[in-house]
Amino acid sequence: MRPHYRDGDTIDWWHEDSAERERWKGLLSQHGLKGLLAPLLDASKMWFVVVCTGIGVGIAGGWLDVLVKWLGDLREGRCSYGFFYNSVACCSGLDPGEVCNEWQSWSNYLGVQSMLGQSLLQSLIYIALSVAFAASAAVLVVTYAPFAFHTGIPEIKAILGGYVLDSFLSPWTLLIKALGLALSVASGLSLGKEGPLVHVSCCVAFLLSRLFKQFRNNETQKRKVLAAAAAAGVSVAFGSPLGGVLFGLEELDSFANESDVMWRGFVTSVIAAVSLQYIDPFGTSKLVLFQVSNSSGNRWLAFELIPWLGLAVIGGVLGSLLIKLNVAVAVYRRNSFLNDWPITEVVGAAAVTAAISYLHRVQSSELVANLFQECDPARGDFHGLCNPTAMWENVFLLLLTSVAKVGFTAWTFGMMVPAGIFLPTIAIGASLGRAVGILTQGLYKAYPKAWIFSACPPDPSVRCIYPGFYAVIGASAMLAGVTRMTISLVVILFELTGALSHVLPIMISVMVAKWVGDAFGEDGIYAIWIAMRRYPWLAPIEYHDKGETAADVMTPAKSLVVLESGVLLGELGRILDTWEYHGFPVMEGKKLLGYSARDKLRTYIAPLLAEAGASDRRCFFSESASSTSAEVMGVDVSPLVEDVLQLRKDVPLELVVNMFKKLNLRHLTFTQAGELVGMITKTDIVALSTAHFAHTAALEREKPTSP
Amino acid sequence: MRPHYRDGDTIDWWHEDSAERERWKGLLSQHGLKGLLAPLLDASKMWFVVVCTGIGVGIAGGWLDVLVKWLGDLREGRCSYGFFYNSVACCSGLDPGEVCNEWQSWSNYLGVQSMLGQSLLQSLIYIALSVAFAASAAVLVVTYAPFAFHTGIPEIKAILGGYVLDSFLSPWTLLIKALGLALSVASGLSLGKEGPLVHVSCCVAFLLSRLFKQFRNNETQKRKVLAAAAAAGVSVAFGSPLGGVLFGLEELDSFANESDVMWRGFVTSVIAAVSLQYIDPFGTSKLVLFQVSNSSGNRWLAFELIPWLGLAVIGGVLGSLLIKLNVAVAVYRRNSFLNDWPITEVVGAAAVTAAISYLHRVQSSELVANLFQECDPARGDFHGLCNPTAMWENVFLLLLTSVAKVGFTAWTFGMMVPAGIFLPTIAIGASLGRAVGILTQGLYKAYPKAWIFSACPPDPSVRCIYPGFYAVIGASAMLAGVTRMTISLVVILFELTGALSHVLPIMISVMVAKWVGDAFGEDGIYAIWIAMRRYPWLAPIEYHDKGETAADVMTPAKSLVVLESGVLLGELGRILDTWEYHGFPVMEGKKLLGYSARDKLRTYIAPLLAEAGASDRRCFFSESASSTSAEVMGVDVSPLVEDVLQLRKDVPLELVVNMFKKLNLRHLTFTQAGELVGMITKTDIVALSTAHFAHTAALEREKPTSP
Repeated sequence: MRPHYRDGDTIDWWHEDSAERERWKGLLSQHGLKGLLAPLLDASKMWFVVVCTGIGVGIAGGWLDVLVKWLGDLREGRCSYGFFYNSVACCSGLDPGEVCNEWQSWSNYLGVQSMLGQSLLQSLIYIALSVAFAASAAVLVVTYAPFAFHTGIPEIKAILGGYVLDSFLSPWTLLIKALGLALSVASGLSLGKEGPLVHVSCCVAFLLSRLFKQFRNNETQKRKVLAAAAAAGVSVAFGSPLGGVLFGLEELDSFANESDVMWRGFVTSVIAAVSLQYIDPFGTSKLVLFQVSNSSGNRWLAFELIPWLGLAVIGGVLGSLLIKLNVAVAVYRRNSFLNDWPITEVVGAAAVTAAISYLHRVQSSELVANLFQECDPARGDFHGLCNPTAMWENVFLLLLTSVAKVGFTAWTFGMMVPAGIFLPTIAIGASLGRAVGILTQGLYKAYPKAWIFSACPPDPSVRCIYPGFYAVIGASAMLAGVTRMTISLVVILFELTGALSHVLPIMISVMVAKWVGDAFGEDGIYAIWIAMRRYPWLAPIEYHDKGETAADVMTPAKSLVVLESGVLLGELGRILDTWEYHGFPVMEGKKLLGYSARDKLRTYIAPLLAEAGASDRRCFFSESASSTSAEVMGVDVSPLVEDVLQLRKDVPLELVVNMFKKLNLRHLTFTQAGELVGMITKTDIVALSTAHFAHTAALEREKPTSP
Repeated sequence: MRPHYRDGDTIDWWHEDSAERERWKGLLSQHGLKGLLAPLLDASKMWFVVVCTGIGVGIAGGWLDVLVKWLGDLREGRCSYGFFYNSVACCSGLDPGEVCNEWQSWSNYLGVQSMLGQSLLQSLIYIALSVAFAASAAVLVVTYAPFAFHTGIPEIKAILGGYVLDSFLSPWTLLIKALGLALSVASGLSLGKEGPLVHVSCCVAFLLSRLFKQFRNNETQKRKVLAAAAAAGVSVAFGSPLGGVLFGLEELDSFANESDVMWRGFVTSVIAAVSLQYIDPFGTSKLVLFQVSNSSGNRWLAFELIPWLGLAVIGGVLGSLLIKLNVAVAVYRRNSFLNDWPITEVVGAAAVTAAISYLHRVQSSELVANLFQECDPARGDFHGLCNPTAMWENVFLLLLTSVAKVGFTAWTFGMMVPAGIFLPTIAIGASLGRAVGILTQGLYKAYPKAWIFSACPPDPSVRCIYPGFYAVIGASAMLAGVTRMTISLVVILFELTGALSHVLPIMISVMVAKWVGDAFGEDGIYAIWIAMRRYPWLAPIEYHDKGETAADVMTPAKSLVVLESGVLLGELGRILDTWEYHGFPVMEGKKLLGYSARDKLRTYIAPLLAEAGASDRRCFFSESASSTSAEVMGVDVSPLVEDVLQLRKDVPLELVVNMFKKLNLRHLTFTQAGELVGMITKTDIVALSTAHFAHTAALEREKPTSP
């Protein structure tokens, strides 16, 4: 009897696991060749899903890059010999130094001559197209797939933790999310594609897993495939296969001790990275996105730890601030007129963002790539960043950029468009870091003989400080402040930049930023959003009680609705109709027999109740009672009684929380010499772990009423 | 009341965890500045241990390399201007093409003129010194620190799983292991330094952790530090910090869902790698040990998957064979005269190995490095390996090498010297792989126009097949066959060779080799050694029952020794003296009250028993019973009753095994309506999971009788 899950339910791990066990036993018990081949076929289905997901995500990621580049360029002009070429493809094949005449700006194409007319027209088209892209994304999301908004990582964490939300993974959501993501990234809004790519990846895996009954009918098997797939999203977004695996491990907590799931995640994420490399959307045939120049040549010096520690502290503080701002905006949005005008909000944000960013017209990813580069006369001046005479101007502009981006990101992350928070956070941190780097360099040039710079060569014209690497440090610190990840962040950053030699300072800055951030509030942005939506999810971090025991949290036996063996059938039906709990403890006298799920009981007794006079029959929950009972008409419901874990009520709360996490429990009973004294459910534990956060459930979705 | 653990015990995770919880609460409850600073100080002690371990292991690894190189060179000659220079250091500073006259072979140094005399003398000194090194290592190990033999990884796995073996981590063992390792590696025996370096790393961490009470007095805290340290050993051995972390995760299963421990492991292993790089023992300032040349330039072709799959299958079969041979040798050694002549055995093995390997005189690591290299006329001919006319000769020699090395490795791994199995396994696999690569290349040169080679350029003088990479594939397959690791192996190999572009074929070969190997026997070499020594360790792999329930494995209540509330004190003492179980279920009538540990009970009642006439007093295990009892002289032992998990006896065995693993349990009771029906202990579960292996406990150590 397979339980029927609806969106909003929590799965029963024990039941699903034992169903899988039964299925597997059935496979093995077949005779002859079939018995030999069936397990192989079974495994090959799983590998089919895993490998195809990897390839699919790699291709999706590659096409997304191509699409974004084309849409983004479209805001400025078009290719004279083909509408579907982006500016780089349009101008490819030229000799160095040759001027590209094939790429025409809109004013050029439309034949506008006057200077004023040109710049007016260009800016108007730029802003109009930005708004149009953003608005289309919003319309798509609002109208067709509300689940396609936002990053998707909070929902994936919840789903992997046992929450049921199948419409979040539907093919429809996949399509809208992918398309909407391309549009929203191209619109220039302050958002990234990383989280949404994880979502896309899970949708692909879900879609593929529907092909096979073994995943369709089993929630834990489905989740194992999703866990493997999630890693691929990060792998493609950053070109970081190992970072993806560690992201799955640390942030999604998805491999929970099962090394075979981790191995599948590794395979998916490598295959995704390889197929992305094969598609090669940027024509560089490199996985490293933001290569740090000179990373292997230069050694970092001890005194640089001072500015870097400063950056780490700023990253922690600013990260916390960004989270708090984002929460404030989200809560305000929900409770104000904005709630009814989501598309208008997106249009407004896109217009403002485009108007402001028109001045530099650089996509976030390009900005980050430039900020990570060291200045090199041979490679040109990155938007004036390398002009040594404009130090203060550059510092001011960089600081302004980061402050503005904090505001825009806090606003954008949560609007009705697909939006990731990684890239904007990296951009904020990189701007800050570059500013600090330029300042340090300026200080060194001004006082090359100061004792603090004694490790540098005395000649200030020799390069000693590399501001590009300061940008990397800033980005690490800011990311740590916002997401509170550690090891996966470091790995992603060093795969992203190729700077293995500098992994130690990255590590230190991540650690310090996380500490500082934790001092202002313990949760990262994803955990905050989970709490705001009140998904039944348990944070993997260790819970420490303050001396409480289970007795302080449990619902005592006298407040529990219990089913007594021997209850009249009519009475049982009434209880099941009245109380919407997932299930009830089953008692015989004062003894606890087990637990029985409401759904199953209702399905079981519904046909019995329909019979005339059935209400007066007695239901027995233990076999012995029903067989010894004098009544011939007793109903034996003992097969519906499930096993339940029992503890004494004096165990420390910490242990209880731990058991819920490690064993994926849904409820736990407390007994004293076999008598029920209380019960704790997963909901109680979730409430406990989000108790310190003021806006819990601020954005809770109404439980969907499915047919 | 802290339990006193002796070597051979298993720790009580629940008790240790709650002790740590109490300590932490005590720290937080302090007032004023002390209350603020105490947790900080606490954390900084932990980081001190972690960081110092990293630095220490990095330095140890660096010095080990230097020492091995010097000792190894000493077998052939000496430096004329200083005894303590190795051949490379002795000849450094010369212009290219200049002949090094400073490094003198022994015959040269001793002034032997005749050709025959020279080669006789050289080979004699070579063999004599090899034997001397190996013998010194064996004498050191046998006489001073028997725990310093072998790889150490099985023991570390057991210790991290809760086994107590403090003498395995003593400073004395550390010293002998490090010194013995240098000697045994330099002696040219078929062994590597990877596993022993993990052991050394854990010893360093243990030594440092003794400084602080928080680790000294708490076994779980101690294990968290050890888990972090273990990663550093692999990091230093292979220059692979991420591989180290993943090794800890996959093979040692040491981070079990605790991301803070994983982060510490990451920090230790990066710091270790950085300090090794800083010491720079080889003067290359590179972490990548066996750089694969041209790895980024060439693309692999689809048809190459055929020879690679062949290699993978061979790796799996040969890996299994190596394990079985090694087990046979180990069992024979234990049960024959060799058991009493460990040093003689080492001397014999060293003499034979040296005599045979004198012909090519290449250390394993150098051999592997050469096998991984592509032939390049500019870089010289690696021992004739690149001679295109000697194809069959080379293939024959390579196959011979691998077969001989399988034999030597199976013999050596388990002798009384420190010995790792990674490097010899890599050498075997690399030889095989290179042979297959050379054959494929020969085939291509013979039939360049065959359809299978259609992806290659038609001109056979253009290189299409890179035999060096075949060696990498062979090494991966062989390693997977022997260790049965997956993800950490792939990461180690690509960090080792720098061949990120070829990670997909490495992955495939590892997977196939593991599947093939698993078909011949499910466990890797470390798990086999754990079973042979019967350490109480549970494999992290999923256990699948065949329909058994707990009832089939549990000791039924009627066969259990239980303590009844109300037992006479004298009788209790007698029970405790008679039965050497770790503890006993405590009953009141037929009701299960809990569990009580033997050690604690004995300590508690010993002073009471000493009083005259005390034997007739009654002991009560529940407070209510002792307070309502009419007897004034009743002894209240209720504080010694521990909580115990209760399940119904019909739960599937798989779930029981899972609970033991996830919750680190030591025992589990089964009740029916509060009445005890049976009990399962960790020992039962371990026996269950090693039941399929014939030589379980073949090498079991006698339980040490400590004072």
